[in-house]
Amino acid sequence: MSIEGRSDAKAGGRIRLGMVGGGEGAFIGAVHRIASRIDDQYELVAGALSSTADKARRSGHALGLAPDRVYDDFAAMAKAEAARPDGIEAVSIVTPNHVHAPAAIAFLEAGIHVICDKPLTVSLAEAKRMQAAVAKSGRIFALTHNYTGYPLVRCMRAMVKAGELGELRLVQAEYPQDWLSGPTEATGNKQAEWRVDPARAGGGGSLGDIGTHAFNLADYVTGLEVAELCADLTTFVAGRRLDDNAQILLRYANGARGALWVSQVAAGNENSLKLRVYGTKGGLAWAQENPNELRWSPLGEATRIVTRAGPGSGAAAARVTRTPGGHPEGYLEGFANIYAEAALAIKAARDGKKPPPECEFPTIVDGVKGVAFVEAAVKSSKANAVWVKIET
Amino acid sequence: MSIEGRSDAKAGGRIRLGMVGGGEGAFIGAVHRIASRIDDQYELVAGALSSTADKARRSGHALGLAPDRVYDDFAAMAKAEAARPDGIEAVSIVTPNHVHAPAAIAFLEAGIHVICDKPLTVSLAEAKRMQAAVAKSGRIFALTHNYTGYPLVRCMRAMVKAGELGELRLVQAEYPQDWLSGPTEATGNKQAEWRVDPARAGGGGSLGDIGTHAFNLADYVTGLEVAELCADLTTFVAGRRLDDNAQILLRYANGARGALWVSQVAAGNENSLKLRVYGTKGGLAWAQENPNELRWSPLGEATRIVTRAGPGSGAAAARVTRTPGGHPEGYLEGFANIYAEAALAIKAARDGKKPPPECEFPTIVDGVKGVAFVEAAVKSSKANAVWVKIET
Amino acid sequence: MSIEGRSDAKAGGRIRLGMVGGGEGAFIGAVHRIASRIDDQYELVAGALSSTADKARRSGHALGLAPDRVYDDFAAMAKAEAARPDGIEAVSIVTPNHVHAPAAIAFLEAGIHVICDKPLTVSLAEAKRMQAAVAKSGRIFALTHNYTGYPLVRCMRAMVKAGELGELRLVQAEYPQDWLSGPTEATGNKQAEWRVDPARAGGGGSLGDIGTHAFNLADYVTGLEVAELCADLTTFVAGRRLDDNAQILLRYANGARGALWVSQVAAGNENSLKLRVYGTKGGLAWAQENPNELRWSPLGEATRIVTRAGPGSGAAAARVTRTPGGHPEGYLEGFANIYAEAALAIKAARDGKKPPPECEFPTIVDGVKGVAFVEAAVKSSKANAVWVKIET
Amino acid sequence: MSIEGRSDAKAGGRIRLGMVGGGEGAFIGAVHRIASRIDDQYELVAGALSSTADKARRSGHALGLAPDRVYDDFAAMAKAEAARPDGIEAVSIVTPNHVHAPAAIAFLEAGIHVICDKPLTVSLAEAKRMQAAVAKSGRIFALTHNYTGYPLVRCMRAMVKAGELGELRLVQAEYPQDWLSGPTEATGNKQAEWRVDPARAGGGGSLGDIGTHAFNLADYVTGLEVAELCADLTTFVAGRRLDDNAQILLRYANGARGALWVSQVAAGNENSLKLRVYGTKGGLAWAQENPNELRWSPLGEATRIVTRAGPGSGAAAARVTRTPGGHPEGYLEGFANIYAEAALAIKAARDGKKPPPECEFPTIVDGVKGVAFVEAAVKSSKANAVWVKIET
Repeated sequence: MSIEGRSDAKAGGRIRLGMVGGGEGAFIGAVHRIASRIDDQYELVAGALSSTADKARRSGHALGLAPDRVYDDFAAMAKAEAARPDGIEAVSIVTPNHVHAPAAIAFLEAGIHVICDKPLTVSLAEAKRMQAAVAKSGRIFALTHNYTGYPLVRCMRAMVKAGELGELRLVQAEYPQDWLSGPTEATGNKQAEWRVDPARAGGGGSLGDIGTHAFNLADYVTGLEVAELCADLTTFVAGRRLDDNAQILLRYANGARGALWVSQVAAGNENSLKLRVYGTKGGLAWAQENPNELRWSPLGEATRIVTRAGPGSGAAAARVTRTPGGHPEGYLEGFANIYAEAALAIKAARDGKKPPPECEFPTIVDGVKGVAFVEAAVKSSKANAVWVKIET
Repeated sequence: MSIEGRSDAKAGGRIRLGMVGGGEGAFIGAVHRIASRIDDQYELVAGALSSTADKARRSGHALGLAPDRVYDDFAAMAKAEAARPDGIEAVSIVTPNHVHAPAAIAFLEAGIHVICDKPLTVSLAEAKRMQAAVAKSGRIFALTHNYTGYPLVRCMRAMVKAGELGELRLVQAEYPQDWLSGPTEATGNKQAEWRVDPARAGGGGSLGDIGTHAFNLADYVTGLEVAELCADLTTFVAGRRLDDNAQILLRYANGARGALWVSQVAAGNENSLKLRVYGTKGGLAWAQENPNELRWSPLGEATRIVTRAGPGSGAAAARVTRTPGGHPEGYLEGFANIYAEAALAIKAARDGKKPPPECEFPTIVDGVKGVAFVEAAVKSSKANAVWVKIET
Repeated sequence: MSIEGRSDAKAGGRIRLGMVGGGEGAFIGAVHRIASRIDDQYELVAGALSSTADKARRSGHALGLAPDRVYDDFAAMAKAEAARPDGIEAVSIVTPNHVHAPAAIAFLEAGIHVICDKPLTVSLAEAKRMQAAVAKSGRIFALTHNYTGYPLVRCMRAMVKAGELGELRLVQAEYPQDWLSGPTEATGNKQAEWRVDPARAGGGGSLGDIGTHAFNLADYVTGLEVAELCADLTTFVAGRRLDDNAQILLRYANGARGALWVSQVAAGNENSLKLRVYGTKGGLAWAQENPNELRWSPLGEATRIVTRAGPGSGAAAARVTRTPGGHPEGYLEGFANIYAEAALAIKAARDGKKPPPECEFPTIVDGVKGVAFVEAAVKSSKANAVWVKIET
Repeated sequence: MSIEGRSDAKAGGRIRLGMVGGGEGAFIGAVHRIASRIDDQYELVAGALSSTADKARRSGHALGLAPDRVYDDFAAMAKAEAARPDGIEAVSIVTPNHVHAPAAIAFLEAGIHVICDKPLTVSLAEAKRMQAAVAKSGRIFALTHNYTGYPLVRCMRAMVKAGELGELRLVQAEYPQDWLSGPTEATGNKQAEWRVDPARAGGGGSLGDIGTHAFNLADYVTGLEVAELCADLTTFVAGRRLDDNAQILLRYANGARGALWVSQVAAGNENSLKLRVYGTKGGLAWAQENPNELRWSPLGEATRIVTRAGPGSGAAAARVTRTPGGHPEGYLEGFANIYAEAALAIKAARDGKKPPPECEFPTIVDGVKGVAFVEAAVKSSKANAVWVKIET
């Protein structure tokens, strides 16, 4: 039942899904749920939606979960669901960062596939433990670096791979926001509170929250390896405990250069993730806030506006598209693509098979890379912004 | 479980939904299904997905419908579902235009709510019969003029109503596409075939398909009444039986003037619906392909870029929003808002209540207006583009 | 001494130029003077800068004119300058519209070349008298429809001529402004006063002032002949004597269709002239306020952003360009191109030669067409917006 | 004879101007000449237009200079012109960088005002000698950092000064081009040849040519002092002797952070200078290629599009504007503003007066700062991109 590439046909029926976090007042949990529904490959049947029992119950009820599948804590849920014949096959972990690792490990050990929000963990050590748990479990692990789900991001990656840009020379990534321009965390904003708390967020503030997105996007599109970085982290808002701005220079193993800027104090920017990549043969520019347009500049020719599902957007984009060109697809559709790709892998796993080769989603490896990037940037900045290698 | 305005909490459980049309190879059926799932207020349980029995069966299976709820024709479906204790409460009609009226009437007579694609019908006479059937049934009837579901379209309407623009003077609406620039219908493209066939599409080609959207959008935002119009319809592609371009002047009852242009032969335009409205105190400009941005120009002040969920977008937009500003919402989310609004009304009807006053979706009245607009434009054009009134 | 195409080398020295109008407080006179200086082909040496003697004198002094070449009225100036051995070779007429014809005729009869602002005259009858005077004089007559001086407008024309768009089908021209949204003419604004006075402006308000620009631009780029038009003129501001908005449908002799909208009451629009042209093979879109970018959409391919002096902008644009791509050229440079082209013709005339074939500027023919367009639109509108032919 | 702010009235007559460089085949000389003519405050009467005698003669003739004022070398010109009663009052130096200092010093010592292209010199030592010469001469010295002549750049500076942005936190400047993506200098391109030759260009390639522009623009708008920088310079094109890309982090004395990126190998970028500045109260974003639009984002409010000469653009912009809003002014007009400002100062000097306080143009101080920036960046990069202070 395909429109363009994506489809809501569901061979083998829906995947039984649980959720950790995402109760009342949460932001990203609802995004995950919408993403899981768009292509109809999942059915939410269980949840440990809050660490507050009352709230967990209310939230489960509101979402129509069966009362006996509403849990107070993820450990109990992992255990109980693993024991049910109709137990969940996969779980979405949508909590603050510090819960990712313990929760993921619990479900992996229970033989349940994991879809986890980013950044992976609050420390590289923890990330590596998680990586070991994934390896040991043999389960699918998908990390929701959702921006790689945008069709034109897929298109960029495919173009780079196909050599359309020649040898890459430059990578300019940025992700400015403005919502933490003042002491938002002191105003009762829960989203702000945990993001600026090292215990829950990890060592990076803007760096962990959005820097990992920008880093992952550049990594996904270019396929280049960062050799070293020089990071200048700043905290502009008085009393804040983590960075709210990061300016980072990058040197790639192939000699390319890059810059990455993230900020949460740049007035007028909502979610302004942008990537520009230049090679010997051409350049690409893409902006998340208008994701259905990609600028492609073959050297010496006029710049092309490649539209999602339009001429030149290619097969890799078409696979993850639902509507013809000119019907804007956005953030939720991109997010849904991660879910749909993970569904392919999970369904293949049902049959003991590998997912098809074109199936692509961020994995534990991307998660570890992201945390290593955060730690390297923090280390660089603490040493007065010197060049350091990323250790993984 | 609200993120911003929309929520997937579901008091009373999901609405049992059926679908007429939307089988293999269809376009808009899949859009309706996604739209119905985004906020999780519906569950598709039955379908007459194709008029070809085999295809209907295959399509129903692919979507995971129970075999006994996969029907060959809508009449049988209306009858059987009405008789089931767990029968559908609502049906989505996503067929070519000529089936809308008979199908809708069958379900309404069976006491089932109807969500129907646009344009309403192939003739005004038929539209009026349908209107009578709606009235008689007392059931909810929602027409998927989906562009009114965009948050910033809601914002524009609210601003006009609040007098932010003063007295309206000018309405400039346009909806150019390019996909019918050549004889697409002769290449086996099913979407093109029926849209240029008067028997299935009605008297308007581009006029019915996208002209009704542009007309409805202007109508929704401005609330103005068109007194008369002057339409010059053209068929540029040889052998085509309906218009593929329409240029229309509008005179409003309050003295405002307008122009409406739709085309399916304007190279470089995918789905380029735009609306500009000007009054004595300011102007608004919005474009569907980048729907998260609205330009508001208070007279004598700098133009503002109002973003979806950003400062100044207001309560009417916030109600129908799922993500914070900067996370682009698109076509499917706008479409989903029509479904979510209809769900409010359907659930209220379960309890014999009225929907809340802020609940808003296009109704049979909008459908009749649209068909009357098509007939008036065709009449004007046939008389060599003279001024005619819209009769409803 | 060429940078790109234009040059300030001046074989034969500068052209001695006079000016009628353009004294203190005027707008367009200073624009003409800058335009005449940019490529250094003219030297202003005489003027009848105001019909008020004192003001004429003060203005002449401020501009450094010799006192004996500052005149109170154009007739005296034409006579005196014609009699001087170092008299002006050309005159710029930059007065309100009603003075164009008498002044131009006086100078033409004195054997002096004329560069005249638009619209040509206040009536078609007068336009024809002027046309006869041009013919009789054998002098150069250039009309400053300056928008045809933009390099990318030249590029569009060349692309259409070269068949890049195939057979033309659609022409969408618009020129909204907002500066007359209120009763500006009642506030002492001289620019507004004469533009809304039929005696000085002619039969068209917005129509004459900016409608002729939009019409000329479409005419220049497409080369198509308008067979008939249907115009709905409106005056929104109470007490105003001429139209401040015009919505016009166009039918071209080749079967193409067009629409032209001009307004002076569209809040948020400064000088928002736009042209879109579509043919069987592609489309073009250009906007005056960002004139260094042209969108070219070959049918079935991604849209290209052709930049001034960038790849694909071509020879016709390169001729009239002064700086490499990315150094924005604007309104004054476009205007200067009309002056530079006229200079080529005037210098050729010095030697009794024809200008080179690539030399192009709006002539008396364009001026007559423009006034005929105004009269046809007024006639159509007065008859309740019926279809009328343009008579020239 | 003002249109908006600028005027071609000329109290005291035109300034007699000479030019060094700018003969046949040059680029920037013609730009200077146009800039000098736009407001009609200068008259070019002498030149040492080329160091090749023949070419100097041909160029002087083409520009209509008197043969006895066409010189083979600048030293002879300085001497001869200083001796004439009608000698030049000011000279424009438009040569490659290495000639700036000797030429400027020669004219300053001859008592002639200097308008000089940027960067100031090929070394800081030379820059300081030049600074001493300016001081000793008491003559006007203007450096054509032309981007500070754009009206909306003036507006940004005024807004920052007025505190509209609060305390500044972030400065993001960039200036990518693509014209040196290949070995352009090996193809006979004279503009490329000297720019990549350390003897003629100085120690910076892209850094000196466009990095100084970006640095100056940020400096002009913010008024902030750079405490230290960390620069990673790269040469991507094999065999090139100077950098063609520079990524630089900035730390400001007030604690603000910045990043500056310049490149000549970024495909699809012509002259894409952009500046973004963020403070505690709001943000500004401006792009040179569409210079008539400024985005102003007061924190917590919708972003405004401030247009040149439009509402909110303010007095500082209005002073340097020639046309109403919507008539795009570009590169040449901005450049002309530097000339017009210098003219105010030169004319004041005629009378032994100071220029009016609002008169503003880049001076020797800005030139020294720019060269110091280049040397600091080269030093940082050579030490593997460590933090260094800018020494002046």
